[in-house]
Parts: sequence; C-alpha cells; structure tokens
Amino acid sequence: MSKLVIVGTVAFDAIETPFGKTDKILGGAATFIGLAASQFHVDAAAVSVVGGDFPQEYLDLLSNKGIDISGVEIVKKGKTFFWSGRYHNDMNTRDTLATELNVLADFNPIVPVDYKDAEVVMLGNLHPNVQMSVLDQMIKKPKMVILDTMNFWMDCAMDELQNVIKKVNVITINDEEARQLTGEYSLVVAARKIHEMGPQYVVIKKGEHGALLFHDDNVFYAPALPLEEVFDPTGAGDTFAGGFAGYLAKSGDLSFENMKNAVIYGSTLASFCVEKFGTERMVNLNPHEVHKRLQQFRDLTQFDIELT
Amino acid sequence: MSKLVIVGTVAFDAIETPFGKTDKILGGAATFIGLAASQFHVDAAAVSVVGGDFPQEYLDLLSNKGIDISGVEIVKKGKTFFWSGRYHNDMNTRDTLATELNVLADFNPIVPVDYKDAEVVMLGNLHPNVQMSVLDQMIKKPKMVILDTMNFWMDCAMDELQNVIKKVNVITINDEEARQLTGEYSLVVAARKIHEMGPQYVVIKKGEHGALLFHDDNVFYAPALPLEEVFDPTGAGDTFAGGFAGYLAKSGDLSFENMKNAVIYGSTLASFCVEKFGTERMVNLNPHEVHKRLQQFRDLTQFDIELT
Repeated sequence: MSKLVIVGTVAFDAIETPFGKTDKILGGAATFIGLAASQFHVDAAAVSVVGGDFPQEYLDLLSNKGIDISGVEIVKKGKTFFWSGRYHNDMNTRDTLATELNVLADFNPIVPVDYKDAEVVMLGNLHPNVQMSVLDQMIKKPKMVILDTMNFWMDCAMDELQNVIKKVNVITINDEEARQLTGEYSLVVAARKIHEMGPQYVVIKKGEHGALLFHDDNVFYAPALPLEEVFDPTGAGDTFAGGFAGYLAKSGDLSFENMKNAVIYGSTLASFCVEKFGTERMVNLNPHEVHKRLQQFRDLTQFDIELT
Repeated sequence: MSKLVIVGTVAFDAIETPFGKTDKILGGAATFIGLAASQFHVDAAAVSVVGGDFPQEYLDLLSNKGIDISGVEIVKKGKTFFWSGRYHNDMNTRDTLATELNVLADFNPIVPVDYKDAEVVMLGNLHPNVQMSVLDQMIKKPKMVILDTMNFWMDCAMDELQNVIKKVNVITINDEEARQLTGEYSLVVAARKIHEMGPQYVVIKKGEHGALLFHDDNVFYAPALPLEEVFDPTGAGDTFAGGFAGYLAKSGDLSFENMKNAVIYGSTLASFCVEKFGTERMVNLNPHEVHKRLQQFRDLTQFDIELT
C-alpha cells in the first residue's frame, strides 16, 4: 500500500437544488477526495487550510475516517473558504452565488514530514501555484501525480496551470474544460493534445454521461450509473478523483488495465455522492453498499459477444 | 435465422456539415436500416415508396446487398421523398432546410406475401398509421417488433403513436424524445413510464454519449466509440436500429443478455456510418472492419475487477 497526499480545499458549502437548500455544511475538494479515498483504508494525509470558525467535529470526522489532518492548517483569526451555489432543474448547470476565499487567499501548503515521500499525490482543484508548491516539497519523485483543475484557472492562471500540467501523470477534467484547455471540440483530439502537454493519462469527466480514460492510443469508457434522481451533484467530480487516487494508492498497480478499475471505482463512489446533500452519503457509506454497486456497474457494461 | 421486415423511407438527402456539402444523395430510414441489417445476411425485405425520379442504381444497390425490394413501390409519376439539413459545428444539432414529402404523402405500405410471417419487424421512423398498417398485415404475430420514431410524431400524431407503441416489444428513441414522450427528465423514470405504455424493452439513444437498454429493473449502457471526427451524423440512429434488428433476426435469441449484444452491434455499425457522407461508408463496409471495431468496443468497455 502506498501513501497518499491530498491537497485541496476544506470548506463550507451552501447549496440549493430543486430538492432543497442547505445552510453552511462541510464541503471542499480535499474533503470529498479524502472521504472517497478512505474507502480503501490507505495511509492518506490532507493538506489544506481552515479558519477559526471551522468546527472541531468536522476535523474529527476526517480524522476518524483515517485521514491524517496534521497538514490542515488552522488560521485561528481567519474564516474558512466558503462557496455557495444554486443548481438548475437539469442539475447539469449551476450558478455560483458566493465565493469567499478567506484563509485560502494566503494559503501556503505544508506537506507533513511523514508524507514527503508519498508515492501518490492527488492535487485537488486549487490555484496551480499551490499545487506546484506541494510537488516541490516532495523529497522523492512520486510514482503517480494526479491533477484536478477547472476552467477558472484556465481563465486567470493559464501559464501557471500549464507548468503544473507538465509535471503530472494523470489529469482529470470535465469535457468543457478539456475543450477550453486545447481549443479542440473532439475529445479524442483534445486528449491527444493534453498528452502532449505532459500527462500520460487523461481522464475526461462527462457528468451523467460517464468518464473517458485516454492513454496513448487506448481509450476506456466508464459510464455513469443511470440514476432515478440526482439530489446534489456537489463534490461528485472530487469523489471520482478520490476514488481513482485511493484505489491506485491501495493497489500500487499503475498499469492501464488497473487504471480502468480505478475509473470504475471513481464512478461508483461518485454515484453515491450525488444521492444526498454534500458529504452526507459519503460519510455513511459502507463497504457492502460499494460492493453491491460495483456489481451493478459490471451488469451495466459487461457483454459477451463471441469474436471469432 | 429469422425473416426481417423493414419499413421506412427510401429517400434523397442533401446534407451540409462543416466538412462539406452534398447534392441529392441516397438516404432514408429503410435504406440505412437495410444496409446495417445486411451485415448479418438476414432474409430482409424493405417496405417503402419512391418516385419515378429514383435511380435504378440505388434500387440495385439495395438488392445487391440482399435486401428484397419487392415491397418498395415505385410511383412513376411521383417524386421521391426529399430531406435537406445543415449540421451545426458541434454536429449534435441541425437545421432542417427542406422536407418534401412527395410520394410519401399517400404512402400505403404493402408487405410482400413471403414476408407476412416474418419473425422480426423493424418499424422505421414514419407516420404511426403507416407503421400500424404494416403490423396489421402480418399473418402471424411477430416474435419481435421494434419501433423507431421521432419528436415530430409526438407533436402531430401522439394518439396514433401511442397506439403503435402499445403493440411493440422494443422502442428506440433518443433522450430528448424519451423526455418529451413521458414528461420526465430522468431517463430511468422515463424508461419506466415507456415500459408501462407497452414495450418490454426501451432503448434510449444518446448520440455521442452512447445508448441505454432498459428491461424491467435491468439496464445496460453501450457507449459510443469516441471518434476523432464525426463527418456526417445522418442515418446514425437508423443504422443503430438496423444493426440491432439485424443481429436479433440473425441470432433468433431474444433474451436480455443477447439484446445487450444487439445494442453493441448497433453502436458499432453506427460508428462507421458517421465517418462519411450519407450511406457511403455503410455501402463499402466489410466484415473484417466490423470485427475489428467490435474488438475496440470490447477494449473500450470491459474491465476486470475482482469482486469478492
């Protein structure tokens, strides 16, 4: 089993969907990634920052899931990063109602000493310079660095983002972001251009339409489980990334064949995440449920045509 | 091997895409369905109508593919159905530039005597009354009736459409049409409502995002092959339906497990159809190419997670 470093936000979210509305609840990329990765009982550490307003019970929750939080800085006089958004009826689009950076504005990530030699690094969505700073602190070249990012950084920090992209093995972005990053509409062509930027593996997330994994001329397509209803999509992409990274860290097998399984695990965990508000479903998820849903994924996609 | 009756248009299409523009070329639902089904060397007959302006070489082309065209009426003084459309840059949306019904306006389909006992009937997109007339002519209840339709008939002939839907085993429609037919956004819920209308099997086509097959509480997801470029989407849905119907007619096995394979064959053939204008790619498709692409579909979707 490998050590896993997770960098990303630990935050407050306030969410509105057609099904209801929350007050400030636990959110953040590192939170969702950590909760997903915790399903694999890997030795994981979160690197993040919160304010003095952040409840101890949320920190305990992460700790109790086996996530080392010694790298989560608490700025006593600061306020925790806050995001608020409202989803449209189709659940595929949303309006951001508020983004308060707060302590994130001056975040200087510190990787705990015991994790500076981690084999797997998951760079959750954050300013590319913060992501780079984490990589610079590693004393041994990680076997696998996974980068998640979003269009916001392409708009305002493209050069810095491209510098990080050069240094990672896997990038996970959504379809529109892949198109924006490359200027190509075809995802096949976009993936090839991203390969040329650095990452050997490109994962393109298509929300309800699943995810594509590209490597050289190989491609793998994991569908999303068709759901009766999506209750709250917040954190689904991070949960996917956390499942992906957690599975790879646990198995230690970085082959393309095994990465297919990592994509399936990511999709499986994401399918739970959207069933309830925020982290609620992920906090209460048990291995039996995961096992059952993996079986559903198999039934969903596996066929048996005789090719002679 | 079963006999297959195909009803649908045999037509002229004029197509504009970002890649180019055609004059009037061979098109029509029954044409694309027939070409796809011909890959399985089934005993198939097309039921359709053309005008005196329809070239003999197009009829010969269908004949030479082994499709019985004795049910294709030639109205010497009439003109063939003509459709013209322009695709937008994303290839997912299009404007209809012209629709000239011509001989289709008074089409009275006649099923050839030898095919009135066919086991499989593929009702291609046409007025629901025409589809119903074909069913009424069958002297033996077919083992499997597959219906393709479109939003146009939901707008102008919903009652007639629902009467046909009651009588079919499988319906193939796209995601937006499934939503329109049921008033449900979730495709899972939409499929359940369509089950209640009659069909035991519901296939929802999602274009570049693949296709879903629903049956009772089972669901199967066949992705579309990620392509570098889609040259012309015209006929892709009909080709999917033709591959689906042709495979079922050939194998005679109407189990859910085998229907998964039918969906994969449909997706495979549709992935060829979009590579060139109109029918060009399908006319020149050879079994070796199909075999190779089925292998690609397997690599695209199959994984091997040990579930203990």
